Amino acid sequence: MTEGKHDLEIVRQVAAPPAKVWRAWSDPDILKLWWCPRPWTTEVRAHDLRTGGAFHTFMSGPDGGTSDNPGIFLEVVPLQRIVWTSMLVEGWRPADPWLPMTGIFLIEPEGQGTRYTARCLHRSDADRAKHEEMGFFDGWGTMIEQMEEVAKGLD
Amino acid sequence: MTEGKHDLEIVRQVAAPPAKVWRAWSDPDILKLWWCPRPWTTEVRAHDLRTGGAFHTFMSGPDGGTSDNPGIFLEVVPLQRIVWTSMLVEGWRPADPWLPMTGIFLIEPEGQGTRYTARCLHRSDADRAKHEEMGFFDGWGTMIEQMEEVAKGLD
Repeated sequence: MTEGKHDLEIVRQVAAPPAKVWRAWSDPDILKLWWCPRPWTTEVRAHDLRTGGAFHTFMSGPDGGTSDNPGIFLEVVPLQRIVWTSMLVEGWRPADPWLPMTGIFLIEPEGQGTRYTARCLHRSDADRAKHEEMGFFDGWGTMIEQMEEVAKGLD
Repeated sequence: MTEGKHDLEIVRQVAAPPAKVWRAWSDPDILKLWWCPRPWTTEVRAHDLRTGGAFHTFMSGPDGGTSDNPGIFLEVVPLQRIVWTSMLVEGWRPADPWLPMTGIFLIEPEGQGTRYTARCLHRSDADRAKHEEMGFFDGWGTMIEQMEEVAKGLD
């Protein structure tokens, strides 16, 4: 699903309650278990969950490839909403990201589970198209499936 | 003065108390009187003084030149601190600014007046050097002098 000309969006029913989805996001030791499609792995280099706090993930693939993604959190509403951007780094400093984006993640109760929205905002339609061609829907879809599996397994 | 390799900074003693400097910043009808060096003029297209709120100025020169500067406020602490960036626009959307920057403005009491700090953060030393060559110190210095004159004249 695409919302707005420059945006990409996935909405999924997740079979875990909002409190567990929130834990999967707010604990970096849990987040790293699902943050990128396996067999790639995630190192969480910063996870300061507040407006302006650093959020930095570094991913590594079995072929030696890496993906470095510094950024900051912009909005944090416990159990409900997280906004992150690659456009700025800690201390509000402008960044020069390989993928200019803002991610908006919404957690809403739905039945026994969660309605989870992952929305990615871009500068332009060209950036949106490039991200879609890079495999946004497969990649982010897999992340959400991994998140669901991890969240369901939490106590 | 330069603070940090990528930053430009001006610190000035302003002969108006913090409350008047704050008013000169927080009222768009006052801000437009000093925001760019005269004879250029400023149109304030958005001034939503809260974290995430749009701040958009459009400047016009007597020679027909223009400068369009959309962005958002990142931090607003009344009477003390304003942070603005060109890297994002309203709704946290990534921007594609002609001048990638974050501006940090500090208002502190000093004697009968204000110690005013205007700090500009860049992505890189190259961006900093470019901004300095564009006339940062003259331009921002003039803005501060104009701000002081306007603030002193407030009731």
